[in-house]
Amino acid sequence: MIEVLRLNHRAFRDKRMTTHVALTARAFGAKRAWYTGHKDASLENSIANVVKNFGGDFSIGYVGEGVKFVKERKDKGWLVIHLSVYGLKLKDEIKKIKEDERNILVIVGGEKVDWDFYKLSNFNISITSQPHSEVSSLALFLDYYFEGAELDFEFGGATKIVPQAMGKKILKK
Amino acid sequence: MIEVLRLNHRAFRDKRMTTHVALTARAFGAKRAWYTGHKDASLENSIANVVKNFGGDFSIGYVGEGVKFVKERKDKGWLVIHLSVYGLKLKDEIKKIKEDERNILVIVGGEKVDWDFYKLSNFNISITSQPHSEVSSLALFLDYYFEGAELDFEFGGATKIVPQAMGKKILKK
Repeated sequence: MIEVLRLNHRAFRDKRMTTHVALTARAFGAKRAWYTGHKDASLENSIANVVKNFGGDFSIGYVGEGVKFVKERKDKGWLVIHLSVYGLKLKDEIKKIKEDERNILVIVGGEKVDWDFYKLSNFNISITSQPHSEVSSLALFLDYYFEGAELDFEFGGATKIVPQAMGKKILKK
Repeated sequence: MIEVLRLNHRAFRDKRMTTHVALTARAFGAKRAWYTGHKDASLENSIANVVKNFGGDFSIGYVGEGVKFVKERKDKGWLVIHLSVYGLKLKDEIKKIKEDERNILVIVGGEKVDWDFYKLSNFNISITSQPHSEVSSLALFLDYYFEGAELDFEFGGATKIVPQAMGKKILKK
């Protein structure tokens, strides 16, 4: 099982970024998103609405103390992976990560990430050594982890989009 | 050559989303980003600063009329691909796209995408049929297009990040 922890959410500046992190976590096969920073009911509602409509076993929850949360996960035997532009290359490390059978907590940063998270993580992993986005980093990590199988995951929701060459086909139960 | 067109940028709401789209375009091997909507000097400056520091042949430019721009690209023989949750599955279409030797314009939406862009596109492609993010969609498309080679692209900039198991190593020329 994979869960995602997004650090330092700022309700004003990061609303859409954190929403996209959580939706990417869900669409690419993670089971839960957590976030630190500002508690944000509108963020939580928008994710809950997607789950209600599109289905799947996914939720988002607020975490008051990120470091404590990560330590507790490690104590419970979880593998902790921090996605950071400074980390080791995804392609060099993904095999080791896949072979590890523990549950996984993937940490993605906000603007500034405390040193503690680097130290607590079993792997600091970079998705290119160039600046881009926590959203693209998370998507790539999950795609490499699931080897593309996540693109075919079914969510069984009341709303289902059917792929079309042109146009929109939406089925509602 | 791949370029990316981001539709309907709103300077206030989308600042960080469009920045992340453009940075993802650059980091994953596109050569240029274009955007419609609000002209935004601060967006353009932040991308120019990344290119100045981290290198590479990349720039961002404003487009006044998106439909006209796309038509002109098609007239010049470009392949146009629109990433949309409603499109055909990436895995089913990527081979055909890779075999096409034309330059590619990848369109990613803002909140609402005019019907014209669906009609003008040679391919409407979905990256999962679930809601997530234009940033993760673009990253996945480019990763599948370049088959992971983009993770090793070198940009030759004055600032270079060297992958580390723990910590930050930044070389400056």
